[in-house]
Amino acid sequence: MTFATETIQVSTGSRPGVFDLTSAVADFCRGRGDGLCTVFVPHATAGVAIIEVGAGSDHDLMTAIDELLPADDRWRHAHGSPGHGRDHVLPAFISPSVTIPVVDGRPTLGTWQSVVLVDTNRDNRERQVRLTFLG
Amino acid sequence: MTFATETIQVSTGSRPGVFDLTSAVADFCRGRGDGLCTVFVPHATAGVAIIEVGAGSDHDLMTAIDELLPADDRWRHAHGSPGHGRDHVLPAFISPSVTIPVVDGRPTLGTWQSVVLVDTNRDNRERQVRLTFLG
Amino acid sequence: MTFATETIQVSTGSRPGVFDLTSAVADFCRGRGDGLCTVFVPHATAGVAIIEVGAGSDHDLMTAIDELLPADDRWRHAHGSPGHGRDHVLPAFISPSVTIPVVDGRPTLGTWQSVVLVDTNRDNRERQVRLTFLG
Repeated sequence: MTFATETIQVSTGSRPGVFDLTSAVADFCRGRGDGLCTVFVPHATAGVAIIEVGAGSDHDLMTAIDELLPADDRWRHAHGSPGHGRDHVLPAFISPSVTIPVVDGRPTLGTWQSVVLVDTNRDNRERQVRLTFLG
Repeated sequence: MTFATETIQVSTGSRPGVFDLTSAVADFCRGRGDGLCTVFVPHATAGVAIIEVGAGSDHDLMTAIDELLPADDRWRHAHGSPGHGRDHVLPAFISPSVTIPVVDGRPTLGTWQSVVLVDTNRDNRERQVRLTFLG
Repeated sequence: MTFATETIQVSTGSRPGVFDLTSAVADFCRGRGDGLCTVFVPHATAGVAIIEVGAGSDHDLMTAIDELLPADDRWRHAHGSPGHGRDHVLPAFISPSVTIPVVDGRPTLGTWQSVVLVDTNRDNRERQVRLTFLG
């Protein structure tokens, strides 16, 4: 059994958005053989998704989140920036954990799949992402 | 390779809600070393999420679910209580499975993260949750 | 440590829908002992869910997706069929990866749980699903 884990830092700044983790995940898995890679965000206001990036879908995702979980004053959790309460609901729908099969040291992502951090929270400018390999 | 699995019982009563599993998960992982813990609900009308609890977000989540998947008569699946059909759609959006990295017997949850059972179904008062460790 | 992986083909045709993978998953796990099975779709416009099928919920899920992520012209990603942009947002909410505990070669699904491919994309008639066992 091989277990490895590493925490990387992602500078998300003060804008909500989608942050590409694909090459960090590929680098982490390289040389590790066969197994599972879990990408996990230890934050209560962010998620991890696998989507296409660079053709508008990252923007579309943020728009969909604004539509489905509006950043307004409906939320009981009312600390931080206005509407911040919805950032705390987000991870129930976009989980902070995703598991990717790894074959011969390579995540088996499809051609158009990227692993991304989804962060709607503008109050937190630095994020951690834990990468784990078990094989 | 270490594999361990255990099923716990959660009394959810007749109110929809969020039920904290964090300490059960921590207890289960204790002493098991490094690996992955999968929290899995073997029910078709519940999910598992990782969110902050105790500051309003558990309530906010239930409100968001009511908004996005209303418990009304729109659903084709029409057994059980009125609106129960939406309980069956819920697990597509809030998955019944979440995987958490474990380091040295400790789930690597962030400070504000709790593992919760999300149950909108008032017809089912007792739930099972399967905890699994592989490392 | 046992690692096994296999890619199956699913003919989804030109209609959006839910495609049952449960027996394929059960067949794949049979005889493999204890561990975790990850069901992973290497496509950017599909997800994997665990829901009840055959009592209307598969239809209800597609209706909910149409409601929450309408196939209209709001999306910036505008290749393919009209509304195709929403297919690219779907996997952020219905993840392409789900992990199921396996005990003694059997996925520990509940009575009413089926593993399904969720595919809203009518432009892609053949899909791959990667099954992975680690135990």
